[in-house]
Amino acid sequence: MALIVQKYGGSSVANGERIKNIARRIAKIKDEGNEVVVVVSAMGDTTDELINLAHQVSEQPSDRELDLLLSTGEVVSSTLLAMALDSLGYKAVSLSGVQAGIQTDSSYSRARILRVDPKRIANELGKGNIVIVAGFQGMTQDMDITTLGRGGSDTTAVALAAALKAEICQIYTDVEGVYTADPHLVPEATKLKEVGYEEMLELASYGAKVIHPRAVELGELYDVPILVASSFSDSTGTFICKEASMEVRNKVRGIAHDTNVAKITVIGVPDKPGVAMSIFEPLAKANISVDTIVQNASVQNIADLTFTVAQTDLNKAMSIVEPVAKFFGAKQCIADATSAKVSIVGTGMQNTPGYAARMFRALYAEGINIQLITTSEIRITCIISEDKVKDAVQALHRAFELEKE
Amino acid sequence: MALIVQKYGGSSVANGERIKNIARRIAKIKDEGNEVVVVVSAMGDTTDELINLAHQVSEQPSDRELDLLLSTGEVVSSTLLAMALDSLGYKAVSLSGVQAGIQTDSSYSRARILRVDPKRIANELGKGNIVIVAGFQGMTQDMDITTLGRGGSDTTAVALAAALKAEICQIYTDVEGVYTADPHLVPEATKLKEVGYEEMLELASYGAKVIHPRAVELGELYDVPILVASSFSDSTGTFICKEASMEVRNKVRGIAHDTNVAKITVIGVPDKPGVAMSIFEPLAKANISVDTIVQNASVQNIADLTFTVAQTDLNKAMSIVEPVAKFFGAKQCIADATSAKVSIVGTGMQNTPGYAARMFRALYAEGINIQLITTSEIRITCIISEDKVKDAVQALHRAFELEKE
Repeated sequence: MALIVQKYGGSSVANGERIKNIARRIAKIKDEGNEVVVVVSAMGDTTDELINLAHQVSEQPSDRELDLLLSTGEVVSSTLLAMALDSLGYKAVSLSGVQAGIQTDSSYSRARILRVDPKRIANELGKGNIVIVAGFQGMTQDMDITTLGRGGSDTTAVALAAALKAEICQIYTDVEGVYTADPHLVPEATKLKEVGYEEMLELASYGAKVIHPRAVELGELYDVPILVASSFSDSTGTFICKEASMEVRNKVRGIAHDTNVAKITVIGVPDKPGVAMSIFEPLAKANISVDTIVQNASVQNIADLTFTVAQTDLNKAMSIVEPVAKFFGAKQCIADATSAKVSIVGTGMQNTPGYAARMFRALYAEGINIQLITTSEIRITCIISEDKVKDAVQALHRAFELEKE
Repeated sequence: MALIVQKYGGSSVANGERIKNIARRIAKIKDEGNEVVVVVSAMGDTTDELINLAHQVSEQPSDRELDLLLSTGEVVSSTLLAMALDSLGYKAVSLSGVQAGIQTDSSYSRARILRVDPKRIANELGKGNIVIVAGFQGMTQDMDITTLGRGGSDTTAVALAAALKAEICQIYTDVEGVYTADPHLVPEATKLKEVGYEEMLELASYGAKVIHPRAVELGELYDVPILVASSFSDSTGTFICKEASMEVRNKVRGIAHDTNVAKITVIGVPDKPGVAMSIFEPLAKANISVDTIVQNASVQNIADLTFTVAQTDLNKAMSIVEPVAKFFGAKQCIADATSAKVSIVGTGMQNTPGYAARMFRALYAEGINIQLITTSEIRITCIISEDKVKDAVQALHRAFELEKE
């Protein structure tokens, strides 16, 4: 008898019919002799509808109230799933985040889980119940309700799997797993059977939206094996686990891309201490994530500084950077909203020469100009023009022969 | 500075615009220097929509799950009201039933409040907050969510007023107060300024659906003065309080009626011990409320037994009564779904002769046949044919001169 934690996303529980389908899937797992804990997101567009309601009564709803409001969405879907299981003849009980013992800090709208008290869940499992937990939510020390922000339900599931020492955490979503590249861009992309936590982090951060990076990090930290699969099919999905269990190392696992990229270049900044700090500190304070940063070697103590932000943050970032650049006597600030990233991801690349060269050659052969380059231990990223993304991803997929299993 | 508890029903918070209106009303009370605790129902048809969702996934949803599901409706409306107050510049915080310290037994779907722990509310009031509490819900000792059943939000409000020793509990609804009769039947009905708890109980139980009897009982028990008024106007409403403060005693206060009445007559039952018990015990077990019971004097140890049930319970009641009646050798069981009740209500009637006679004369003058008569200390009720209700209520209203303030 294994303890299995499953998570179903909003599209999997979008209406009564789908909830009944999910109930049948869960029943099967239970019939196989397992203990089952299920984490659910809110039904379909519920969260957006609740946010819309909030904006009807307030231009800027307080985070504390918004969190309590939004937390109802997952309570609704989890009670409905428990009812559906009950009507199939299975004992089931639904628990809110509070009841499930999810304790968080008090950063409303993006709370972090501090600890999980699994007593109640263990108790319900002991009574033979399938336990349905409302995802995305927790409780502060003062019994106020918090939500966990983006990727919240994934994070709930992995945290519960860690606290309950579950055999596996299964994340069911509307895609079949993790692919070597976005199948919309590369029809011959293949599904990965396994991928390491860090590889998955690079792939997910760079646009393969299957599971939230935060949940992957938590999985790595607590050594929780994660399966990502579709709730609409029976195909096997992708297994996220320690690299040690990889079949193949030193290989590119996939091509990631991200088109929500804008580039800011500050031309002619003095090459002296304090300049970078003066530019990036106010951006951080304004909650703008800066991604790639490149400064070229200075000529006569004058250098050019280039960095990328999300396209949605571009205007705000420019309004912060321009006065600072002017203060330091920079010649010009250039904003470019038409950039994109393509990356090759795989463990062991840093020990093996040739990956970067192969990547650059493949892009050159397509006539794609590389604007910036940045690397991590398991990733090489090129910033290119947004309109070349599809060509670039296809070319790289071919160059690294990812269409072969 | 007074502490005021207010309750707003579902139609008062049915959409964003109405919630903003209510927020302005509450702000005014706060501006007058009061501490304010507000109990809200779910928005408009939310509860019905949630029940409908439940029935999409299960023919018979478990009460435990249904309660957790339904409790989200009041959480939604209370967070929205807190946001609306916040956007007007007033400090407000919303609390679920759990957070507000409403502790109940574990009779799901019709839980009784065991106690209220007012610590959190007192704490929030101390910080200068207007406190919005989700009505209709509470928590068992095991931290499971319960709902209070019919009249739940009214009951939450009166219970909080009692626990917080509030100066008054104001129940805002979509009617202007308690009238001498249903204004739909009697256009010249006048609004009562004051009414005693017991009079209100008789009026409310008998169809004047303004405030739930359960909340009135609780108000009487804990001596909570209750104001019933409209949230859509500024008129003064009706004050429900101890009889002692009544301006006028020994007077008919109002005419109540109820058309959800069915009559069952068992003809020719033996007049011997155990017959009544054998009929009414199985009805009680089937959760069927029996109202008026009349047994005529027996002739040769054979009597007729008549009683009323809700029209909606008639078929179920007949299926229970018929076999028992047959067993005792009764001649016949007659079901009549076309009955109705009219009552005159007022304290002190039992000490003053003439009320009953005046009532019967008024009905006689209209040619209305009285099928059954039943009385309490403050009420005289006649069962009549349903199609005569309007005539009867109007005739009685005139006979007791209720159109005069």
